[in-house]
Amino acid sequence: MAVSPFDSAMLAGLHGDPEIGALFTDAAEIRAMLRFEAALARAQAGLGMIPARAAEEISAAAETVTLDPESLAAGTARDGIVAPALVAAFRAALPPEGARWLHWGATSQDVIDTALVLRLRDALAMLEARIDAILTALGQAAAAHRMTVMAARTRGQIATPTTLGARIAVWGAPLLRQRERLAEMRPRIMVVSLAGASGTLSAMGERGLEVVAALARELGLGDPGLPWHAARDGMAELAGWLSMLCGALGKMGRDLMLSAQSELREVRAGQGGGSSTMPHKSNPVGPETLVALARLASRLVGLQHEAMLHEQERDGTALALEWHAVPQLCMAAGAATRHALALAGSIEADPARMMRSIADTNGLMLAEAATFALAAHMPRPEAQALVKAACAEALASGRDLARMLAERTGAPVDWAALFDPAAHVGAAPLIADRFVSALAAARG
Amino acid sequence: MAVSPFDSAMLAGLHGDPEIGALFTDAAEIRAMLRFEAALARAQAGLGMIPARAAEEISAAAETVTLDPESLAAGTARDGIVAPALVAAFRAALPPEGARWLHWGATSQDVIDTALVLRLRDALAMLEARIDAILTALGQAAAAHRMTVMAARTRGQIATPTTLGARIAVWGAPLLRQRERLAEMRPRIMVVSLAGASGTLSAMGERGLEVVAALARELGLGDPGLPWHAARDGMAELAGWLSMLCGALGKMGRDLMLSAQSELREVRAGQGGGSSTMPHKSNPVGPETLVALARLASRLVGLQHEAMLHEQERDGTALALEWHAVPQLCMAAGAATRHALALAGSIEADPARMMRSIADTNGLMLAEAATFALAAHMPRPEAQALVKAACAEALASGRDLARMLAERTGAPVDWAALFDPAAHVGAAPLIADRFVSALAAARG
Amino acid sequence: MAVSPFDSAMLAGLHGDPEIGALFTDAAEIRAMLRFEAALARAQAGLGMIPARAAEEISAAAETVTLDPESLAAGTARDGIVAPALVAAFRAALPPEGARWLHWGATSQDVIDTALVLRLRDALAMLEARIDAILTALGQAAAAHRMTVMAARTRGQIATPTTLGARIAVWGAPLLRQRERLAEMRPRIMVVSLAGASGTLSAMGERGLEVVAALARELGLGDPGLPWHAARDGMAELAGWLSMLCGALGKMGRDLMLSAQSELREVRAGQGGGSSTMPHKSNPVGPETLVALARLASRLVGLQHEAMLHEQERDGTALALEWHAVPQLCMAAGAATRHALALAGSIEADPARMMRSIADTNGLMLAEAATFALAAHMPRPEAQALVKAACAEALASGRDLARMLAERTGAPVDWAALFDPAAHVGAAPLIADRFVSALAAARG
Amino acid sequence: MAVSPFDSAMLAGLHGDPEIGALFTDAAEIRAMLRFEAALARAQAGLGMIPARAAEEISAAAETVTLDPESLAAGTARDGIVAPALVAAFRAALPPEGARWLHWGATSQDVIDTALVLRLRDALAMLEARIDAILTALGQAAAAHRMTVMAARTRGQIATPTTLGARIAVWGAPLLRQRERLAEMRPRIMVVSLAGASGTLSAMGERGLEVVAALARELGLGDPGLPWHAARDGMAELAGWLSMLCGALGKMGRDLMLSAQSELREVRAGQGGGSSTMPHKSNPVGPETLVALARLASRLVGLQHEAMLHEQERDGTALALEWHAVPQLCMAAGAATRHALALAGSIEADPARMMRSIADTNGLMLAEAATFALAAHMPRPEAQALVKAACAEALASGRDLARMLAERTGAPVDWAALFDPAAHVGAAPLIADRFVSALAAARG
Repeated sequence: MAVSPFDSAMLAGLHGDPEIGALFTDAAEIRAMLRFEAALARAQAGLGMIPARAAEEISAAAETVTLDPESLAAGTARDGIVAPALVAAFRAALPPEGARWLHWGATSQDVIDTALVLRLRDALAMLEARIDAILTALGQAAAAHRMTVMAARTRGQIATPTTLGARIAVWGAPLLRQRERLAEMRPRIMVVSLAGASGTLSAMGERGLEVVAALARELGLGDPGLPWHAARDGMAELAGWLSMLCGALGKMGRDLMLSAQSELREVRAGQGGGSSTMPHKSNPVGPETLVALARLASRLVGLQHEAMLHEQERDGTALALEWHAVPQLCMAAGAATRHALALAGSIEADPARMMRSIADTNGLMLAEAATFALAAHMPRPEAQALVKAACAEALASGRDLARMLAERTGAPVDWAALFDPAAHVGAAPLIADRFVSALAAARG
Repeated sequence: MAVSPFDSAMLAGLHGDPEIGALFTDAAEIRAMLRFEAALARAQAGLGMIPARAAEEISAAAETVTLDPESLAAGTARDGIVAPALVAAFRAALPPEGARWLHWGATSQDVIDTALVLRLRDALAMLEARIDAILTALGQAAAAHRMTVMAARTRGQIATPTTLGARIAVWGAPLLRQRERLAEMRPRIMVVSLAGASGTLSAMGERGLEVVAALARELGLGDPGLPWHAARDGMAELAGWLSMLCGALGKMGRDLMLSAQSELREVRAGQGGGSSTMPHKSNPVGPETLVALARLASRLVGLQHEAMLHEQERDGTALALEWHAVPQLCMAAGAATRHALALAGSIEADPARMMRSIADTNGLMLAEAATFALAAHMPRPEAQALVKAACAEALASGRDLARMLAERTGAPVDWAALFDPAAHVGAAPLIADRFVSALAAARG
Repeated sequence: MAVSPFDSAMLAGLHGDPEIGALFTDAAEIRAMLRFEAALARAQAGLGMIPARAAEEISAAAETVTLDPESLAAGTARDGIVAPALVAAFRAALPPEGARWLHWGATSQDVIDTALVLRLRDALAMLEARIDAILTALGQAAAAHRMTVMAARTRGQIATPTTLGARIAVWGAPLLRQRERLAEMRPRIMVVSLAGASGTLSAMGERGLEVVAALARELGLGDPGLPWHAARDGMAELAGWLSMLCGALGKMGRDLMLSAQSELREVRAGQGGGSSTMPHKSNPVGPETLVALARLASRLVGLQHEAMLHEQERDGTALALEWHAVPQLCMAAGAATRHALALAGSIEADPARMMRSIADTNGLMLAEAATFALAAHMPRPEAQALVKAACAEALASGRDLARMLAERTGAPVDWAALFDPAAHVGAAPLIADRFVSALAAARG
Repeated sequence: MAVSPFDSAMLAGLHGDPEIGALFTDAAEIRAMLRFEAALARAQAGLGMIPARAAEEISAAAETVTLDPESLAAGTARDGIVAPALVAAFRAALPPEGARWLHWGATSQDVIDTALVLRLRDALAMLEARIDAILTALGQAAAAHRMTVMAARTRGQIATPTTLGARIAVWGAPLLRQRERLAEMRPRIMVVSLAGASGTLSAMGERGLEVVAALARELGLGDPGLPWHAARDGMAELAGWLSMLCGALGKMGRDLMLSAQSELREVRAGQGGGSSTMPHKSNPVGPETLVALARLASRLVGLQHEAMLHEQERDGTALALEWHAVPQLCMAAGAATRHALALAGSIEADPARMMRSIADTNGLMLAEAATFALAAHMPRPEAQALVKAACAEALASGRDLARMLAERTGAPVDWAALFDPAAHVGAAPLIADRFVSALAAARG
């Protein structure tokens, strides 16, 4: 089925992501749950709590058994959670010793939470690699365009000149911080979940906390120290990170959409969607998708935050909200990084169009600079009045401010040099350079 | 894939809905899009704009051709929208005349919007039928329990007595209003979309608006009068209606969850999810699901409202947000009505547990009534002071207020009658009756 | 204080609305609560349930007494709701008979809900009047610009020609539907709330339901029939209507923002925010504000929908969510209608800029029309090939398509007439006319 | 005015927070903006960019001048942002030299962003101190109740025993992580904003980046390295942190609400809101407020995430969304920590009620333990069958499982010891201890 665009074969190239998507199939979840059961058995056998043979049987079968997702549907509907049906089906496929000790002392949420974390580990590794690749591409583009002069736009209006490199640096800076945040977040969320029916590990006797540690070693995950069945801040932090990633890329997408407007065409990235009947169109499909995914993610992040209101020791409602938030946020981040990488690696500037936009302002964007220049040769109020009058006329007539000022005053100002936009980009190239340096530093 | 629980085979019995789900598969969308193309061709042929033969070819093929969703993925990724690839693939399957006149003067969003409306028509019919069935079940339960006395709870605290029938009436009242809202909303949203590339129908010459009307007749939908490519209030209203439906059912679910708590067990509905190791548990799976779906829907409704910010004549970003909102809202409403129907039809009260909760308050819930009764036999301030002192002692000692008052005053009050909870249900049975009557009236 | 921009004196002209804001002050809420108490007393006196003198005292004092909001803060903090402190303070200001019968049989939520509805009545009347005024302005603009030719933009790209009048019609159509929705919604939400402590009116004996009806008559509101303490669909519907209003106006705002870009400057509305140092800038403050308010509203609507999960007979948490949603949604709608009215009444088109944007596409937007025209004089495939080749060259060279086609073919096509954008606006002027007619019809 | 409950004098004790609230008044914003201007002038004077006298005049006046928020309203409405009006008003209050060099090279958003950060610094310090105080109180309660046996509840159902200390540890663990996150986040967001009109610092010539560093030193904030006018991930991270804080406290609140239900009354914290007519009620006002604030925060976090879609160099719409999100999130966190501290410091357990809930399950919660015990004396399947049959009868009859098992088997099991709930709390006390240790370790 395809109620969600993330699950649609038809929309796979648009909102999908094959790598991330593969982690969030029913089959992948089942596989991860079996890995949990195998690791739990090995951990318990290692502590002498269950027979080694049981652990061997469970481990072996976990690699080979195939459980059909549909066959678990009835049980899941009855229990409100997939784990009991899965454990029963797996048990039925096991030899007696393994069957007897399977899932020993664990509860449904233990297996579900840990199976999620195992897949999130892979998802985060994929996303991190893509962020790095996007940063590399943006770094190259920022360096290449450190002095590519273009009009800055504030509130949709042409302001004063900047460079494309500086704009790209602003796109990249949040991604550098996302790398930092990821490194900080990982130890908090890459942890096993094992707490038993009531969060006390009581079915494992006195050695429950040892089993947690051993399970963590088996799976290469951390020991949470305290149970997190009902403490979902880690998932909320993850959701926030994913949504911020989408947001950072969405900002780049939005800027690319605006740049791609027919009237601007200043920056081009990605393949524009064509139209047979309207050959002048080049729909900014990738940028649009980035924006849509960011807006969607900004809805899902709140859903996951609200799921922190997890009642008492375990809460079926709050847990179900996570099912709707976390995988979709991973997919949104997956699709977004996929599109962003294609865009970041294909940024092309059209300097002529950039200069045209600047020229269309008739020099008015540099009115303040003209006042400064004139103030060196006459009293400031006089300079201001002169420029103001010339601006008014330039606005009305559409004539060039520089030319009008040259006509109106004999002040020895090099008007051509003054009105060269490149002279007014301020720290823009340095900002591009700083980004490139910060990126190199982050890479160590 | 199953990034969304709505698309998971494993969770199908929980968050899924086979009927609604069948409307939102890739295949169903393709089928609906083909229906649009066929109807458009017939409408245009009827007006003499395209050859009758073309319309016949298109109509015939639309019934029989099968297009593989995956085969449309590459084109969709390129264009950001599925329609161009679909039209191309359909055209390739048509004889020359049909191929030539297919999709004549229409734009991608025309086919996508109308194909959505066609499926929404079916979804709304299904949901309406289920609302009616839920109302029937609630009406029967309200009638049956019009005098089933239970403690009302305000802010989680036992207040004074009510009846289960009155509570059920409060569950049902919003559903009655949802029926009204549906009837009002339908003509606004059950309309075709046909406006052409720029919303002006320009490719159809002077007769564009006639084609819209003819297309509407072909499909049994309304004529929107004005194009709605970029006026998405109808979809926002729909989203609101779906979310309100989930919210109304979620309130019932929440109440059932609270009633199902081990310490209450006053009302039981549906099959509780069992636990082999904890035989006393009966997890309220259906009620939990209702609450989860309502919270999810309350997120998606805002996403759809935001999609009203549809830029200029058509907006790829805003449209993509709808893909994430509308089908999922329909599924949420589908799963919610499915669960709610099962619950509403199996409401069982446990009057003994209800009376136990009331009894546990030691009569304190009727302190005010005691004051009134005593005030008939002594000055009001004296009555108030007497009751207040007795209450304090009842709270501290856990003894029964009625007994203590009887000991402390010789006033000729029939304490047993006064402290009968059934005497204090006020209009509760009349409220149940009113709901039953309103339901009958709504049915005509 | 001014934690919310809606309460900031500094931002009053931006996000504020003096009329709507006046309804949602502490003082206005207190005044409305006193009106409820007065009307309740009169209703009960009319039914002989309380002494006429008590009702007179309460009614009289409700008009004159002034209660300081801060003096109610401690009680509100203790009770979690303002009503008990308010009733106590009002009682202290009453003569004995009035004091004795004040708030007879009512509960806190009765007074709070009804006091909200009283103010919502005023808010809806204000908003309706403004919608009508906006529609009038849009109707005039649509009529004036029914043939003002401009480029339609789809997905940020120039598509084919439309007219400004058609675009304005698309802005206005949702407002026409909002009028309909308001008329339908009003009877559902313009109702009193009176249900007593447990929603059963038990403290009023057998005549509780009569009091509800009498109270409704006193206040000129409807009788809800069934209690709605815990059935909040009405508030959710209201929230949806307010958010849809913001969304409809936000769409207009977004289009105006895009039109106001330095590179477009096609449509101007409202006073642009100036910049002393950048005289060419004209920040689209009003349009920006419309977009921001629409996005905000799309968040609050979901909060209110979620508040439908009102637990049991009354729920302090769900009610508190409404305090954060409903007044802010009213203010968002208030500020949005205020800005929209100013904008709609000052729409100015710049036809020269509009034609320049069209001209900049070098005729490519009419490639399809050229193919049709040539197909009358040569085989269609040949015509297509010819136009395609000319388009490719036009894109590469920046030369005009019409001129190139004229050079390449002797076909007797009137190229100048064909490439006149006005010849390709399709039904755009009719769409503008339809909007004007629909508006007239709606006005009766 | 009081459109928002955060600004209501009446609701100040409920949703307000006097300390945090004082940071988000119009007056506090003005004060912080003046501090920015003073620090900027000193930084520029220190670099020799403006005369020392100008800096002195600006610094001196920034401490003493008082600007009326209302006087800035008209300018703010015109410009869409408060800074121009503020700068103009401040300039009018300055001597000529200061007036001339005020706001030199800065743009509106520089002053607004930095003024926000200055106040966020104070807000975060307050919140951190409160988190620490809440943790101290929770640590004491966890230690005191490490062996206070109570029923764990999963999905609203009594599961097996735990201890109150373990539950409290789960409340506290996210707060420990919030401390970590705060330490990590601070350097990213406690930075000045200074980038000039187009984000290039162009008006300050070549030394712009030096001014940023000097300004940061003046204000005791960090240097962002790259401009963040349009890179709002820091604000999104902050919003997430605030919302997670509300969520963590909301979970505690929700548990306390459920524990406060009339039928449970197991844990009491804070002063319950009383009812004169229903003396048995004790409304959990503080816990309810925590839940409401968490749900609200989970809406605002998404709004702020979406504001990352900041267009081009500066975006008036995205910025306005922050005004609605950040201060309210701070207030939500402020009110939540205020309530949580009062609750955490007054946790009282009622062990008798806790044991009553456990006893009401008739021993069924320990069915699994009984099976284990019997399996030591008979084949496991036989033990399972025996316990299962006894459970069924216990459920039906309401008799005690231990007693029935003792009657049905002669196996030498110490049934009284086995059915002692304290024997089944597993690692619960160790979990409480771990929390206490982790808290001590975090404190260093």
